[in-house]
Amino acid sequence: VTSRTPLRVRFAETDQMGIAHHSAYVVWCEAARVEWLRECGMSYREMEDEGLSLAVSEVRLSYRLSLRFDDAFVVETALTEARSRRFRFAYRVLKDTGEVAASGYSLHTPTSRDGRAVRLPERWLSALAPFVTPSGLEGE
Amino acid sequence: VTSRTPLRVRFAETDQMGIAHHSAYVVWCEAARVEWLRECGMSYREMEDEGLSLAVSEVRLSYRLSLRFDDAFVVETALTEARSRRFRFAYRVLKDTGEVAASGYSLHTPTSRDGRAVRLPERWLSALAPFVTPSGLEGE
Amino acid sequence: VTSRTPLRVRFAETDQMGIAHHSAYVVWCEAARVEWLRECGMSYREMEDEGLSLAVSEVRLSYRLSLRFDDAFVVETALTEARSRRFRFAYRVLKDTGEVAASGYSLHTPTSRDGRAVRLPERWLSALAPFVTPSGLEGE
Amino acid sequence: VTSRTPLRVRFAETDQMGIAHHSAYVVWCEAARVEWLRECGMSYREMEDEGLSLAVSEVRLSYRLSLRFDDAFVVETALTEARSRRFRFAYRVLKDTGEVAASGYSLHTPTSRDGRAVRLPERWLSALAPFVTPSGLEGE
Repeated sequence: VTSRTPLRVRFAETDQMGIAHHSAYVVWCEAARVEWLRECGMSYREMEDEGLSLAVSEVRLSYRLSLRFDDAFVVETALTEARSRRFRFAYRVLKDTGEVAASGYSLHTPTSRDGRAVRLPERWLSALAPFVTPSGLEGE
Repeated sequence: VTSRTPLRVRFAETDQMGIAHHSAYVVWCEAARVEWLRECGMSYREMEDEGLSLAVSEVRLSYRLSLRFDDAFVVETALTEARSRRFRFAYRVLKDTGEVAASGYSLHTPTSRDGRAVRLPERWLSALAPFVTPSGLEGE
Repeated sequence: VTSRTPLRVRFAETDQMGIAHHSAYVVWCEAARVEWLRECGMSYREMEDEGLSLAVSEVRLSYRLSLRFDDAFVVETALTEARSRRFRFAYRVLKDTGEVAASGYSLHTPTSRDGRAVRLPERWLSALAPFVTPSGLEGE
Repeated sequence: VTSRTPLRVRFAETDQMGIAHHSAYVVWCEAARVEWLRECGMSYREMEDEGLSLAVSEVRLSYRLSLRFDDAFVVETALTEARSRRFRFAYRVLKDTGEVAASGYSLHTPTSRDGRAVRLPERWLSALAPFVTPSGLEGE
């Protein structure tokens, strides 16, 4: 499953170069990840309420084209790996022309409320399994 | 007691007008508030660890002069009111020329971990009392 | 005209109290302000491209109820004053229950690219005039 | 040259997991990069004022240990590559215990004010050359 989350560059997300700051993409990918889960019938909020987090263990983003204030764009998201102790999401940020503005991935470690790495409970794992796309985003 | 917290405008805090974004000041005042407490021998972290927060119930900031990327500045902070259910901090953001870039205040409600308004325990209240400056920041 | 901008609390906007950080509301009001302009047929991006900004000279926000991660909410926005050298927007942040989470206003000074306060050109002023709501947000 | 920039986790940088949000590290590395330049006698502000930016083309961060509100930490920074069209900085975020909380790198493309990739002028390149550490951060 690939979700497509439409967003728009907020003024506060611009910097003095007149483009969206690179740290904003990290926040957008996170928002898109939450929407991916929602589209697959899961709620990250519910997971957090149960005391489970998908703590970020790595982020990598490549920036190709800049986005400007008020630009509409889409974050494509896929879950490319879902193991009990490791998740990997892939992202592509698309301008409304369809051009790739940025792409990347994040790695996650299921974590308990006290910050310890844990195995993701079978219930969540089996709910996520059908939606994994090991091949990643089309055309990636 | 008036604390003086030196900071510098981060690139990520600028916007496409080429100045520090107005929301950054809200974050700076919070950081300065934590430093004020530290200077008065108190730790906001410790307060949080005890399950107490000074939840923000109001913020007001007036912006007079803009700050640019890499500008050094100081946030002056004073506690102008400390009651068991209401705190008020006053702030002044000073350019390194001494000019006032912004000024304002925040109101706070002591809050328990579950989000309910509570009376601040006597222990904290009496520790803070000697440092209250009802007259606010000098020259305000 | 009152615009209603639907948003959702991003994970990055929460803090360790488990609620949306108070600085996030400042960013949401700005995003809602841009949407208000769009609904009234104007583009803040276009204004910026012409070298004009509505620089923020004051912000005041009162926080009544907290918002949590993934909460859907609406920012109601009205332009309550539009003079050549001073703008005032009013905001109300509504939970999906309809309860008021926060309310406030911002004051703005038309500013040229070099940061000087200027008179807003007649063209923009007359375009905005029909949409001013001096009485503010209904029920305010 | 390895610079060491001391910082502290701001309350606004925490999330509801009770730790510093992963996007904050991106901002800290940027702030540390500016300090690295300053320590080497260069001013990124001056470079920007000349219409030159080191636009970010890639960021990668690995997170090992979390940081909590008010934690003091240090960002170690080194310039590991400086070519006319490509820069690479390496980072290590150290807890005050000396443990590595995170590490990573950023790639940069010299860019003109209008967003085009350009060759970094010889003046800047030769000023930076003596400070390059191709071997990266010690112990990396």
